[in-house]
Amino acid sequence: MKNVAVFGAGRIGRIHAANLAALPGVQLKYVCDAVPAAAADLAQALGAEVSTIDAVFADPSIDAMAICSPTSTHSELITRAAAAGKHIFCEKPVDLSVPRAEAVAQAVAAAGVGCMIGFQRRFDPTFNEARRRMDAGEIGKPEMLVITSRDPGAPPVDYIKQSGGIFRDMLIHDFDVFRWILCADGDEAAWLSATGSVLTDPAVGAAGDFDCTAVTIRTTKGRLCQINTTRRAAYGYDQRFEVLGSAGLLQCGNHTPSEVLQWDANGVKADKPEAFFLQRYAAAYRLEIEHFFACLQSGQPFKTTVQDGVLAQKLADAAAQSAQTGQPVVL
Amino acid sequence: MKNVAVFGAGRIGRIHAANLAALPGVQLKYVCDAVPAAAADLAQALGAEVSTIDAVFADPSIDAMAICSPTSTHSELITRAAAAGKHIFCEKPVDLSVPRAEAVAQAVAAAGVGCMIGFQRRFDPTFNEARRRMDAGEIGKPEMLVITSRDPGAPPVDYIKQSGGIFRDMLIHDFDVFRWILCADGDEAAWLSATGSVLTDPAVGAAGDFDCTAVTIRTTKGRLCQINTTRRAAYGYDQRFEVLGSAGLLQCGNHTPSEVLQWDANGVKADKPEAFFLQRYAAAYRLEIEHFFACLQSGQPFKTTVQDGVLAQKLADAAAQSAQTGQPVVL
Amino acid sequence: MKNVAVFGAGRIGRIHAANLAALPGVQLKYVCDAVPAAAADLAQALGAEVSTIDAVFADPSIDAMAICSPTSTHSELITRAAAAGKHIFCEKPVDLSVPRAEAVAQAVAAAGVGCMIGFQRRFDPTFNEARRRMDAGEIGKPEMLVITSRDPGAPPVDYIKQSGGIFRDMLIHDFDVFRWILCADGDEAAWLSATGSVLTDPAVGAAGDFDCTAVTIRTTKGRLCQINTTRRAAYGYDQRFEVLGSAGLLQCGNHTPSEVLQWDANGVKADKPEAFFLQRYAAAYRLEIEHFFACLQSGQPFKTTVQDGVLAQKLADAAAQSAQTGQPVVL
Amino acid sequence: MKNVAVFGAGRIGRIHAANLAALPGVQLKYVCDAVPAAAADLAQALGAEVSTIDAVFADPSIDAMAICSPTSTHSELITRAAAAGKHIFCEKPVDLSVPRAEAVAQAVAAAGVGCMIGFQRRFDPTFNEARRRMDAGEIGKPEMLVITSRDPGAPPVDYIKQSGGIFRDMLIHDFDVFRWILCADGDEAAWLSATGSVLTDPAVGAAGDFDCTAVTIRTTKGRLCQINTTRRAAYGYDQRFEVLGSAGLLQCGNHTPSEVLQWDANGVKADKPEAFFLQRYAAAYRLEIEHFFACLQSGQPFKTTVQDGVLAQKLADAAAQSAQTGQPVVL
Repeated sequence: MKNVAVFGAGRIGRIHAANLAALPGVQLKYVCDAVPAAAADLAQALGAEVSTIDAVFADPSIDAMAICSPTSTHSELITRAAAAGKHIFCEKPVDLSVPRAEAVAQAVAAAGVGCMIGFQRRFDPTFNEARRRMDAGEIGKPEMLVITSRDPGAPPVDYIKQSGGIFRDMLIHDFDVFRWILCADGDEAAWLSATGSVLTDPAVGAAGDFDCTAVTIRTTKGRLCQINTTRRAAYGYDQRFEVLGSAGLLQCGNHTPSEVLQWDANGVKADKPEAFFLQRYAAAYRLEIEHFFACLQSGQPFKTTVQDGVLAQKLADAAAQSAQTGQPVVL
Repeated sequence: MKNVAVFGAGRIGRIHAANLAALPGVQLKYVCDAVPAAAADLAQALGAEVSTIDAVFADPSIDAMAICSPTSTHSELITRAAAAGKHIFCEKPVDLSVPRAEAVAQAVAAAGVGCMIGFQRRFDPTFNEARRRMDAGEIGKPEMLVITSRDPGAPPVDYIKQSGGIFRDMLIHDFDVFRWILCADGDEAAWLSATGSVLTDPAVGAAGDFDCTAVTIRTTKGRLCQINTTRRAAYGYDQRFEVLGSAGLLQCGNHTPSEVLQWDANGVKADKPEAFFLQRYAAAYRLEIEHFFACLQSGQPFKTTVQDGVLAQKLADAAAQSAQTGQPVVL
Repeated sequence: MKNVAVFGAGRIGRIHAANLAALPGVQLKYVCDAVPAAAADLAQALGAEVSTIDAVFADPSIDAMAICSPTSTHSELITRAAAAGKHIFCEKPVDLSVPRAEAVAQAVAAAGVGCMIGFQRRFDPTFNEARRRMDAGEIGKPEMLVITSRDPGAPPVDYIKQSGGIFRDMLIHDFDVFRWILCADGDEAAWLSATGSVLTDPAVGAAGDFDCTAVTIRTTKGRLCQINTTRRAAYGYDQRFEVLGSAGLLQCGNHTPSEVLQWDANGVKADKPEAFFLQRYAAAYRLEIEHFFACLQSGQPFKTTVQDGVLAQKLADAAAQSAQTGQPVVL
Repeated sequence: MKNVAVFGAGRIGRIHAANLAALPGVQLKYVCDAVPAAAADLAQALGAEVSTIDAVFADPSIDAMAICSPTSTHSELITRAAAAGKHIFCEKPVDLSVPRAEAVAQAVAAAGVGCMIGFQRRFDPTFNEARRRMDAGEIGKPEMLVITSRDPGAPPVDYIKQSGGIFRDMLIHDFDVFRWILCADGDEAAWLSATGSVLTDPAVGAAGDFDCTAVTIRTTKGRLCQINTTRRAAYGYDQRFEVLGSAGLLQCGNHTPSEVLQWDANGVKADKPEAFFLQRYAAAYRLEIEHFFACLQSGQPFKTTVQDGVLAQKLADAAAQSAQTGQPVVL
């Protein structure tokens, strides 16, 4: 039985807490949150206790923790958890600063604990099946990747101001998908060009950010990746990618609430994509936390390490710089 | 808190037991099975106790039971449960004999307990969304229904011999869908014509059954329904229906394990449908048991009553008779 | 060079005339129509002359004719053309009376001329590709056929009154598809059950016809076919069929004007099917007339003979009788 | 009646010649080609005469010409045709050199003749329908465009060597689509970044060209466009684009030879896209030449002017420069 504490009882904390509480061999023991009522609600719903960070680190019965608190707390909590010898599941990103993220990675390595970063897309059944077929050679050697990543609407401008910007906040997932799919054989980004615009809301621009971006990456082996992103797709949460190989193409489509087609005088209408990430990646969230504990059990490496978190962060930095200067970045 | 016993720890019993055990406000207290090891395994996995039928009926703390034992036991167990004042969730069918099923329905009514029959398709997210739009008037008045219902492979001939035949064993679900979709306003079947063939396995014919069937139903209001069925679709479990209304068509497609399209020299390949009923109707099984307890809580009527079970059985009888005689049946 | 006359300058006559006039090695010489202005318009547009039926039959330079005049004229015109030694392309049906159609078939056989019936669906690129793959064994042995055949709206009641009824007027095409797909190896219909309703317009019922029908056919080899039909599908002209074989399924979908998908707040919208038969079967009309002249040139048999016309007519008769009596017909 | 000469009896010349010969009010009078046999074959097939360039320019009965000869001849032939007062339909591109293309545009303007460039994609029914809906406001204001443009296989290296490179030879169409879709309101490219790789055939690299490219364009209004291209898609000719607007998305899919879906043990297989440009754009070629003569008749402006040819060429030049230097180009 693994005893676990969850830090953060917000939207994503509640997801992870419920998923891990349902796993055989895992017990959710503590919930911590800066807002006591949030911690109490979640703890009660799942039969856990409210606790404090200090108490959790001091409790030798705790094996692992899930860090779901604000981004600004991640590096400190990971570092302390590592020092306390606890295994760590941490939501993305490691840290908005690459040097700090690297320091965290070193601390984790030094402590010898497990640290998995929550890049949940690698656990999505559709994306995962594409990667599986790619590994099985069904499309030959990968050559190009096109990622379409669009949110249904922008978050509040106050959030955007402290988000690190669209490349670090939103595209961090896409940079990880790029590395997971196009660099699966050890290839890495060699050249990156990014540009952005403010097309959906001037307030985003006033906050110093973009709401639409276009990124191109060329790898050491000459593979090409294009990522297009917007904060506001009127038709919902659009999460697709396609990878072209020497023998074919794998195309990952959106998931939908139902498989109903409605035929009428206006045309043939299918469902919009699942509403947002909580719906779209519901299975992925469940599978990633299951993977975390399965790896702790088996000693197998995680699919998404703290190093993956650092490398995605570096791409985000490069993209932000390129979009700012109008010049490509050689990596 | 509702205390529940599950009768039957086979394939479908394990599904229902796990789903109800995960519901807030519901406690799985007992598991009963003729095979002690099966009962013990399931009870242990879900933190319940092994018990016997007699003990369960005698235990005043038990509120409800889920009957997942063989078909031949259903009518007796429902009748005894009703007599004991327990609420009943029972897998389809009520009974292979219409008179016995009617007697069961009377016993339930007399006892004043709730009895829901497990026609899980009414809870499938896709089928349910079609019905919701139909009710919302999005396709006008319903006129025709076409049901495609194909299994990936036939069960063992020994099962077929005691199954009541393809109409009572397999199409029972389709007859319920017919009533649920085309008779939602109180319409009922008025004329039925069925025919069948043995095309996939002569052993099915030797057992006195068909493996492919074609049924047509005309309702009192003149609506038309066609059902095509086979025991063996080489491409998997095919579960579709489409309902034509005066203003449009609602078409329910299959569900798939992933949304990957593979483009290569052979064409553009999508996934096969979900493998079989446990996968295809995983959400439906979860939602129907949730509905059962929600209705017990709220006092609302079940979406699938024992009467629905009786009426589907009558259609199955009529179809079997029609296919045998080559003549239509007026209902 | 083959010299050709077209009888009938209505909607379908204009299609065939334009298609044959564009073929290399074919010259449209004459156009005949009871309405002189119609004949003149078409003749002028395509560089032909207006003529009369008698003159055409008497002109030894005429090799072939395309009969596109009203159904009631078909049998007489085919018979006279055969007697005059002209090859014949005739729109469906041969005749609304099976005995007359059989007499026509005998006259054609006796004269030794070619006579092809315009069952254009056999030339549709999609349907044809399905048949090609079936012949290539890609789905094993055929077992079941489901045909969905829906018009966008009913013709005027005056037309319906002299149409022979929905089975002879509209389903004649579906009966031919049934024979073409499910009886490709010489199998034939053995048992047929049909029913119909009046759901879209009481005037159709007052005219003694149905507007919605459901037909089931069992063949000598036990294969099953279901056909569902309506005169009025609110979403347009719906022309699909699917054939299940022992190793797979071939599903023929509708054609659409464009491949645009529109994603917005309402869902993901594809085009409705092509508007009606002139659009849906534009390629088929072109290919069938090309086939007619190619066969005249090569001496190969037509894909749709006068005998196919007779046999489809017999199925239409059986269906009309079954729907009238409520009893199946053994063929 | 418009009398027309066709220059070039190769693959594309034969297409245009056949299409214009079939138009009412248009007569194909002459065919010219450096290879006499090619000219003779085409002239005979369509009832035209073989002639020479000089004779055509000198013939006052000739109203217009279709220039389908090699790219290197375009600027001279357009200039001479303009001087001779003939209207011009010319295959893309105007010229591989932007200054020469601009000189040609000036010559055309000075002569007052019509000159349409064969950017056939603007006439494709699917692409055209997307533009129509965009103009109708169905997706609000356009914001992003993603173009996927992939050939089924590279042309011979000898062709590549004199093609002007992939940006001028292949992407010229995509640059025109970019301008047609994203700049429909007068917007233009402001910033362009391109990169390329040699992934499919080293011989392409040895010839100084790329076989895979990724281009990003930002317009004056901040709209973003990404184009991904390869010379070799193993699954065929892939021609898609999608335009995101403030209120929705329009997605243009591939066309296929048939609408057959094959379901079997391997999955559900749809057709590959149409084989190559002659099949994919068959309707577009027909519609563009019809448009050319319709505009000559009505005096309406062409949808694709010589100026469009010049501006697409400038984007091709900028992309080639960017991919060579690794630096973006400000336009």
